[in-house]
Amino acid sequence: MASLEDALALIRRGTEEIIQESELVERLKSGRPLRIKAGFDPTAPDLHLGHTVLINKLRQFQELGHEVLFLIGDFTGMIGDPTGKSVTRPPLSRDDVMRNAASYKEQVFKILDPEKTQVVFNSEWMDKLGAVEMIRLAGQYTVARMLERDDFSKRFKGEQPIAIHEFLYPLVQGYDSVALKADVELGGTDQKFNLLMGRTLQKSYGQPPQTCITLPILEGLDGVQKMSKSLGNYIGVNDAPGEMYRKVLSVPDQLVWRYFELLSFLPLSDIGELKAKAEEAGHPIEAKKLLAMELVTRFHGEAAAEAAPRSAGNQIKLGDIPENVPEVDVDTGEAGELPIGTVLRMAGLVKNGAAARDVLARGAVFVDGEKCAADHVLRRGDVVVIQAGKKQIAKAIFK
Amino acid sequence: MASLEDALALIRRGTEEIIQESELVERLKSGRPLRIKAGFDPTAPDLHLGHTVLINKLRQFQELGHEVLFLIGDFTGMIGDPTGKSVTRPPLSRDDVMRNAASYKEQVFKILDPEKTQVVFNSEWMDKLGAVEMIRLAGQYTVARMLERDDFSKRFKGEQPIAIHEFLYPLVQGYDSVALKADVELGGTDQKFNLLMGRTLQKSYGQPPQTCITLPILEGLDGVQKMSKSLGNYIGVNDAPGEMYRKVLSVPDQLVWRYFELLSFLPLSDIGELKAKAEEAGHPIEAKKLLAMELVTRFHGEAAAEAAPRSAGNQIKLGDIPENVPEVDVDTGEAGELPIGTVLRMAGLVKNGAAARDVLARGAVFVDGEKCAADHVLRRGDVVVIQAGKKQIAKAIFK
Repeated sequence: MASLEDALALIRRGTEEIIQESELVERLKSGRPLRIKAGFDPTAPDLHLGHTVLINKLRQFQELGHEVLFLIGDFTGMIGDPTGKSVTRPPLSRDDVMRNAASYKEQVFKILDPEKTQVVFNSEWMDKLGAVEMIRLAGQYTVARMLERDDFSKRFKGEQPIAIHEFLYPLVQGYDSVALKADVELGGTDQKFNLLMGRTLQKSYGQPPQTCITLPILEGLDGVQKMSKSLGNYIGVNDAPGEMYRKVLSVPDQLVWRYFELLSFLPLSDIGELKAKAEEAGHPIEAKKLLAMELVTRFHGEAAAEAAPRSAGNQIKLGDIPENVPEVDVDTGEAGELPIGTVLRMAGLVKNGAAARDVLARGAVFVDGEKCAADHVLRRGDVVVIQAGKKQIAKAIFK
Repeated sequence: MASLEDALALIRRGTEEIIQESELVERLKSGRPLRIKAGFDPTAPDLHLGHTVLINKLRQFQELGHEVLFLIGDFTGMIGDPTGKSVTRPPLSRDDVMRNAASYKEQVFKILDPEKTQVVFNSEWMDKLGAVEMIRLAGQYTVARMLERDDFSKRFKGEQPIAIHEFLYPLVQGYDSVALKADVELGGTDQKFNLLMGRTLQKSYGQPPQTCITLPILEGLDGVQKMSKSLGNYIGVNDAPGEMYRKVLSVPDQLVWRYFELLSFLPLSDIGELKAKAEEAGHPIEAKKLLAMELVTRFHGEAAAEAAPRSAGNQIKLGDIPENVPEVDVDTGEAGELPIGTVLRMAGLVKNGAAARDVLARGAVFVDGEKCAADHVLRRGDVVVIQAGKKQIAKAIFK
């Protein structure tokens, strides 16, 4: 067991705010496993390292013996857009939700301990709540206080419409804390208002209020804007090993130590030593390599991490097959076979269909060292080394 | 059947606004019985003539062949005050609601035709609605538009708290129109916002929008403020015949014709004639007497109306028994007997228990012409003339 001081130091690491730390200390002193809540969108997850800042903090709580309540907010997702104005927010089906939950598990269990994680869905209690309880819930908060939330305040002042149901969603999120009897809730800094709602509602419902911990938003590879898929400045947890390795090495130098604090599981003391060495050397390249290895190992395993530097850092002559090529499993599905263009995408060797067509048109795709035609087909049971351009290579195992 | 023009004239009589009359005309032309909705508070009703302005309009619709949906808003009443701040708004039980509904019926069926009246409760559909549908409902309206409602706007500007559930109640009231497929909704001018909400929501739910008809707030006997129990300027529908007669005669002269328009069922042409005669005479006393007779007849029957002028206008010598004493039935309940103090109240001869004790202490209560002791008891089967002071007298039939 960690001492209270060590536990607090680990919990504090990289956080923005802890509200209220004194209450958290009391809870930690009790010695019982705390219930640590974090809420996730029910839409299809495609996590990048920015998302893992929060998941890493959950893992740290697990290391301290606490229990994670991984909450998938399917209730509101299954409502869709009640104003009927957005066709881009159709309601999710129960099947969608279960599929997305499976995908979450696959991604987050590379970080979290499944034994100390309960995946829960707020439809479990919200579907039973009824209009009466929804109205009671809405009686616990005022219009003026709700309008203090940053985005509402801006829209209200800017005369942009706010539909009344939007006021109900933060209440539902807060009520989740009541239903789960959460001791602690984690969220990004942009979630602070909603986390505090949990505290307010727990008090209204006669529970001790949860401790709210906010975590910073991670900057992307450009070093300025927040990491996001749409900005293209991200490292995806499903990025191929070589790709991930290469991207970590491309992190701007001034961001390296922030990435270490938020993404590495190395103790802060070790990171301090790395920093001293980097300053001595005049560059942090060795530290970056270490971080890259840690992350590739986390998401792809040790073998892939060993191979990653080669498949990433060095260009490979077209048709050459280096040692220690990273392995990927490719699911051939019901058909039992896939065209090479699809394989390139599924093996993470290209970003999308257009990139696949492009590299094939350039004649830069090699299978087991032989130039590959655009109409080539691979079948279940095949095991081949596929190269796409000079940088991307993988051993593909067709299942 | 009334012609369309006659029907419209009757509907328009005394109303403030009809939104939209053109739509109402289309509906009237269809020839089918329209569904006329009016909503009532689920708390114990104790109606005065101010309330009957609206009920009279409902009756006029019934005379035109339409169906009244007498809606008791028990759903919200059974929630109580969700903020937990008001002890004066405890939730109503199902028993409370049913008792209040029975009391409503007893009072309003003196005006409405029970054959053309459906008494409905919004808990029927609201209890089944669920949190999901409540959220969908809330998605149909914006915060800014809700804040346009007069009372919300004032409170918001004055930084008085508005709990979020208060935004849900107008939506519930509007949804009632959807659930009832209302063609027309009636309400006081202070209800205009909520009536229009019915239109908005019916459109959202794919129904033709109801016509909203607002009715004026009736001034009380002081001629200035709205008629209300708490201001003491009211004529209650349960006021004793003599009391009611006397109060109508005390209506300020400038209000007589407004009372005729809103409370009498005489045709407007007859009222015009009465007005001409009053102007000729220099006072409207004959018109007042006619209105008083019409109202006493409506609420107490013809016999009581005949007796009313005597029991109201003339003081009766204590112990004297005049002819044509108004009759009242007194329910002795399970016990089969009642003390005289309770009888005085139940027969409408005194206002409350304190007044009963007072008149008994003064020795001013006579039963069949004999001075009555304060501990006198009356039993089922008794039929006696009871006098309480010089003005109040009734023949009481104990059942």
